Amino acid sequence: MEEKVQSDSLMLELLLSGKVHFHELDSRVGPEKAALLRRQALERMTKKRFDGIGAYKLEYASVSGRNAENVIGSVPIPLGVAGPITIDGEYAKGDFYVPLATTEGALIAGVNRGMKALSASGGVKALVIKDAMARAPLFEFESIKQVSEFLKWLPKNSGQLKRSAEETTRHGRLESIEPFVLGNNVWLRLSFKTGDAMGMNMVTIASEAVCLYIEKNFEGAKMLSVSGNMCSDKKDSYINSLLGRGKTVLAEAVVKEDVLERILRVSAEELNKINVKKNILGSSRAGSSKLNGHAANQVAAIFAATGQDLAQVVESSSCYTWTELRNNDLYISVTMPSLELGTVGGGTSLRAQKEALSIMGVEGSGDPAGSNSAKFAEIVAATVLAGELNLISIQFSRELGKAHANLGRKA
Amino acid sequence: MEEKVQSDSLMLELLLSGKVHFHELDSRVGPEKAALLRRQALERMTKKRFDGIGAYKLEYASVSGRNAENVIGSVPIPLGVAGPITIDGEYAKGDFYVPLATTEGALIAGVNRGMKALSASGGVKALVIKDAMARAPLFEFESIKQVSEFLKWLPKNSGQLKRSAEETTRHGRLESIEPFVLGNNVWLRLSFKTGDAMGMNMVTIASEAVCLYIEKNFEGAKMLSVSGNMCSDKKDSYINSLLGRGKTVLAEAVVKEDVLERILRVSAEELNKINVKKNILGSSRAGSSKLNGHAANQVAAIFAATGQDLAQVVESSSCYTWTELRNNDLYISVTMPSLELGTVGGGTSLRAQKEALSIMGVEGSGDPAGSNSAKFAEIVAATVLAGELNLISIQFSRELGKAHANLGRKA
Amino acid sequence: MEEKVQSDSLMLELLLSGKVHFHELDSRVGPEKAALLRRQALERMTKKRFDGIGAYKLEYASVSGRNAENVIGSVPIPLGVAGPITIDGEYAKGDFYVPLATTEGALIAGVNRGMKALSASGGVKALVIKDAMARAPLFEFESIKQVSEFLKWLPKNSGQLKRSAEETTRHGRLESIEPFVLGNNVWLRLSFKTGDAMGMNMVTIASEAVCLYIEKNFEGAKMLSVSGNMCSDKKDSYINSLLGRGKTVLAEAVVKEDVLERILRVSAEELNKINVKKNILGSSRAGSSKLNGHAANQVAAIFAATGQDLAQVVESSSCYTWTELRNNDLYISVTMPSLELGTVGGGTSLRAQKEALSIMGVEGSGDPAGSNSAKFAEIVAATVLAGELNLISIQFSRELGKAHANLGRKA
Amino acid sequence: MEEKVQSDSLMLELLLSGKVHFHELDSRVGPEKAALLRRQALERMTKKRFDGIGAYKLEYASVSGRNAENVIGSVPIPLGVAGPITIDGEYAKGDFYVPLATTEGALIAGVNRGMKALSASGGVKALVIKDAMARAPLFEFESIKQVSEFLKWLPKNSGQLKRSAEETTRHGRLESIEPFVLGNNVWLRLSFKTGDAMGMNMVTIASEAVCLYIEKNFEGAKMLSVSGNMCSDKKDSYINSLLGRGKTVLAEAVVKEDVLERILRVSAEELNKINVKKNILGSSRAGSSKLNGHAANQVAAIFAATGQDLAQVVESSSCYTWTELRNNDLYISVTMPSLELGTVGGGTSLRAQKEALSIMGVEGSGDPAGSNSAKFAEIVAATVLAGELNLISIQFSRELGKAHANLGRKA
Repeated sequence: MEEKVQSDSLMLELLLSGKVHFHELDSRVGPEKAALLRRQALERMTKKRFDGIGAYKLEYASVSGRNAENVIGSVPIPLGVAGPITIDGEYAKGDFYVPLATTEGALIAGVNRGMKALSASGGVKALVIKDAMARAPLFEFESIKQVSEFLKWLPKNSGQLKRSAEETTRHGRLESIEPFVLGNNVWLRLSFKTGDAMGMNMVTIASEAVCLYIEKNFEGAKMLSVSGNMCSDKKDSYINSLLGRGKTVLAEAVVKEDVLERILRVSAEELNKINVKKNILGSSRAGSSKLNGHAANQVAAIFAATGQDLAQVVESSSCYTWTELRNNDLYISVTMPSLELGTVGGGTSLRAQKEALSIMGVEGSGDPAGSNSAKFAEIVAATVLAGELNLISIQFSRELGKAHANLGRKA
Repeated sequence: MEEKVQSDSLMLELLLSGKVHFHELDSRVGPEKAALLRRQALERMTKKRFDGIGAYKLEYASVSGRNAENVIGSVPIPLGVAGPITIDGEYAKGDFYVPLATTEGALIAGVNRGMKALSASGGVKALVIKDAMARAPLFEFESIKQVSEFLKWLPKNSGQLKRSAEETTRHGRLESIEPFVLGNNVWLRLSFKTGDAMGMNMVTIASEAVCLYIEKNFEGAKMLSVSGNMCSDKKDSYINSLLGRGKTVLAEAVVKEDVLERILRVSAEELNKINVKKNILGSSRAGSSKLNGHAANQVAAIFAATGQDLAQVVESSSCYTWTELRNNDLYISVTMPSLELGTVGGGTSLRAQKEALSIMGVEGSGDPAGSNSAKFAEIVAATVLAGELNLISIQFSRELGKAHANLGRKA
Repeated sequence: MEEKVQSDSLMLELLLSGKVHFHELDSRVGPEKAALLRRQALERMTKKRFDGIGAYKLEYASVSGRNAENVIGSVPIPLGVAGPITIDGEYAKGDFYVPLATTEGALIAGVNRGMKALSASGGVKALVIKDAMARAPLFEFESIKQVSEFLKWLPKNSGQLKRSAEETTRHGRLESIEPFVLGNNVWLRLSFKTGDAMGMNMVTIASEAVCLYIEKNFEGAKMLSVSGNMCSDKKDSYINSLLGRGKTVLAEAVVKEDVLERILRVSAEELNKINVKKNILGSSRAGSSKLNGHAANQVAAIFAATGQDLAQVVESSSCYTWTELRNNDLYISVTMPSLELGTVGGGTSLRAQKEALSIMGVEGSGDPAGSNSAKFAEIVAATVLAGELNLISIQFSRELGKAHANLGRKA
Repeated sequence: MEEKVQSDSLMLELLLSGKVHFHELDSRVGPEKAALLRRQALERMTKKRFDGIGAYKLEYASVSGRNAENVIGSVPIPLGVAGPITIDGEYAKGDFYVPLATTEGALIAGVNRGMKALSASGGVKALVIKDAMARAPLFEFESIKQVSEFLKWLPKNSGQLKRSAEETTRHGRLESIEPFVLGNNVWLRLSFKTGDAMGMNMVTIASEAVCLYIEKNFEGAKMLSVSGNMCSDKKDSYINSLLGRGKTVLAEAVVKEDVLERILRVSAEELNKINVKKNILGSSRAGSSKLNGHAANQVAAIFAATGQDLAQVVESSSCYTWTELRNNDLYISVTMPSLELGTVGGGTSLRAQKEALSIMGVEGSGDPAGSNSAKFAEIVAATVLAGELNLISIQFSRELGKAHANLGRKA
């Protein structure tokens, strides 16, 4: 017993010093102990506690009426980590482990392999270039004459509309109002800053206040729905790809020739060809705006781990994966136009979910407000980049089916 | 203590007899007890055990190397139930409770309200009209002359291609091979029957066998990727909307005038207008092929509850919500062209997830093979129908923000 | 001979007084004479001369090097007129005959029927709500860091960019600059006012000046193409549907119950159902953003008649046809987001084409500049409205094939 | 005078022997004489007469009631030729001049330049891989149960449906029937072989016969519209891109390094980069399925020249332009999935239009039926290839604005 404890703490030291890697543990100490040791190692690294992740106990008093109704228990999703990945973002700076909750074998291992190649190449640059949560109420009018008058009325009353919206919220800021017209129908796309919250609830309430003001002050405007589907929430759309929703994030890396050979066993030229023909041309030919391999895998796994809205995986997984040759190195980037996430609100306050956020140092509100969610977005994009890089390299080496056969998962 | 036990068993009887409803429990006995009693009631109703849902304990030995890597624990997602919903499907017949795992307040309550209205109107008809899991390898050729010869070669060799595929699998059946051409590139969209499994792993391995045969037997064909993005997996696309992927499912109901008034507090005419202007026109104007309100909410919650691939929420939430007036009643249907799910494989074998499937009586393999996943698909579509009906009724009554403010969730 | 002349001038008077309708002439006096008399009648009505339309003679000196190269002659497209249609637009006010050049039988007759119904219902309201010709140069950068700096540099230099653009043109005004990012690539969508010209040439030259300025003043920006396909010219796209290109025009009418019965032989309810199921639902299901019946027919015929760029029929025919019931009347509108046309430049200066513009009173430059092209856009939208109304009424009465069988055309 | 005639016939000989090129004539003999001499040279080369192209005279008796109504005259579109282009197609074999009717300066010159480069590289391969004109009637049913029964009824009655269709037509053959479902609505996409005709009229009448049979023999089927917009006619759509409409045509060439340098003044690598970033990535980012530069320019000009339906330029200009490096040469191909054209019917029987077809040797019916329209499709695709090659080379050399400034056109 004593010996056991000794060997456990020895192994922990080996993990912390990097002499044993996370993925080597299962075969050495068995899956149960491996999970425990990895968790403890992460606690030591981050100086945080992950009891919730270990103990699984949901307190229904905190859930009921806030996160779910008619609760009968919970479903545990296995949680692993990938990393570390070196990120040089505007907010995320340093080496990060990323929590991934999934039941799909090989996903975490694949991301891990991509991260290894990226970190070995000097890491990932990441950047949020736009931040705007949208809601688009739908109004109907009697005639296009009224529509025309409404379009002229809007800019004159934007100050008051902004005030109406912001009276309902402490953190939300109405940044823009864009009308879209179809005959006698007008959608107003209202875009908000929402601090560290994903913010849908906040902007819905604020939008209802805007609608109320309009109906009272513009005769003939009838609000049909506070959400007229040009938002577009939980549905992907070209309007989101073009105008952005939530965070618009970029991540990029230049993967060195020797890293490609040593870790990914493929040349830059081969990777580039597969990316262009599969991800760009294949998706376009299929009638998809999602020019990527499997961004949704990473997004879904991080969302499940951190209490995000799982239905928003739909548009949050929008991603353009782009590669080009830089001599014999490979330039690779992901562009994610509508990454909707938060570090406060919704499921982020549940114990294990909050701990998962804390693994990346992004739990709760940031200082200044919004900095935590921006940092989180950069980490998500870097993780997607790792997943994309790995997938196209596996395609080339024709190991997709084999990877899954070995690891028992679909892709 | 004795008294407590008595009152618990009394309450259980009240639940089973329908004298107390599930959603009334929290305020009566507190959230913890409420969760326990609902779980016990379901156990009695279904004659099954839901210990995993109650106990939250993952056994990592069963997870490691199959469902996840680098495991450090798990993340529990609150699990509630909605229902009962009356379904008259080809496979699903009777009254069903549906497990929904979510951290988004109001989701389960909303589905529940929709189900109440549907069941009060005589229930839901549901139907799977197509079942085909696709994988689309990408080949490149030297010239369009080779492409042309390949297109002629294919139908002559379809028998051998089918044999190559089916040698790799016990359950998979290669049903069709459709080529799509762009210059010197050809995607072969291979569609399979996969029994009760979602089947991606199975069809990937089978597709690799097809590719191998082609490369050996058609000179000049070079396989670039076994997944050329015309599949399209984890990305929504028009090819999936048009040709289907996984299950293509329909569900419909006629909601009676008095039910509309009594439960949903809205007229058929009003609901129909909102559906057409918001879900049909709004999505189209936004450049979205997803003509629905929030199908992704229901799909994500059921997928999380039952161990499905969460990244496939993307295309599985494709849904056309259609309404029309039938005098003063409302006809409503959902058409889901690419619902990808299974009752065996992947995360479905995890304890709590399997229990969640068993609430609906669809755990494991069906007899005949495929009948369980078809039944499951019908239940999902019926649940989406309930969620859609509820959402458009809330839009009308302008209770969206209020619902969320009260219940603390986004929509 | 004397008698003939008398009878011709008598017939002319009958035409002018409305006692004989245009379409009745062929059977009375034969096709050749009918064409002559209609042309003369229009000359009297508009107080203009249409010799070019009658005489067909192209002067190659005016064509060569301006409109075409390697000229060997010309192809005459038959030119008819539909109307009169009563329009109450911001610029187009009154009754208009519309010139339509086509080889497709039944097209002109169909538009004519639609116009008759619209005019009998009090005419068409029309309105241009946006006017912006776009060109989108594509820049590449080394890294997303450069992209980020460029995005910050842009608003600080917008004044100078505007000046660079406007130094190249007398009529063009650079109204907005919108960046779109994909990894290390940035498209700048430059939108211009172009007066009465369609303006592609003008904005291309102005955009090249903008690009030159950027390359000189922002180190690391490399212009790859002055037209990076986010313009999008001669290709339809969601960016054009959402942001508009050329004119964004609306036209609407309320068609009275008795007019529906008497002229179109169909009820409002029937028309509305066909429009929603065919034009809205059918196009969406097909993966088309063009929610209309055959707007392209009217657009192509007017474009051919008036010397517009025929390749721009592609996006100029983008059109949302929307109907709703107003008691027993039918509200119908068309929304055309990217109608690209001009009354000066390109083919509009050719003799017959200019005469065709003059039938509508929109030849050459307007006063103020831009008023002629806006008026023209309103007339085009009203004409499309007529064509749409007629088509859905024919669908109902199941006369589509018959119409074509009788009149020898496709639809 | 004598001398003039002599010099004319001398010049004609110089043209025929290739010692003077078509485009050099204007500056030598003036535009009027140049047009005449080029026309005469083409007459000598093709052994045909082009009086209609020279004389511009429409005979209204042949037009009225067949091609147009309310005719008042005609609009002449300048007609030039590009070429010769060397084509090695299945039907088109040899060197071709291609007639292009346009009012947009530089278009013909640009195509001519592209053809020069292609012919210098050994010419163009071209191929029709699918030929099917579609019409998609829309049926509504009471319930999805009826829909399900209808889906089962269809294959059992396909023989009778085919007979119903083919009783109405001598040339049309119903090749396939594909149902698409949305709730209680079903579109049947009927695809026909139509010989040398574009065939819309033919397939509309045949489809009406199919609908009549269905309504009589399947109780509960109600045909709402013979054209339910999943056809899709005169609207581009993903269904057409994926399943094809009219001809699906491929054309390709390998442009040699020395030709790129000498004629196009650009390297293969540069051209490839511009094509991928502009035509593939730019169009995708804009939300366009048209991954090309300006295919519509060539399609519109040939359609106007040869009496095609100008509204069908919309989907006929669908085109994927694909390039890849072959060492220092450039592989380039175009894939046109929905090229709708004919050599009989519609405007093809008008005199000048028929002469324009005869320049390419494709006037009237082919032997066997369908061979003329297939040959024509191959020539169109080769012409589009030339236009695309020229455009991307101009983009690189930054001569787009200049080209237009010099030649007075928009692009």
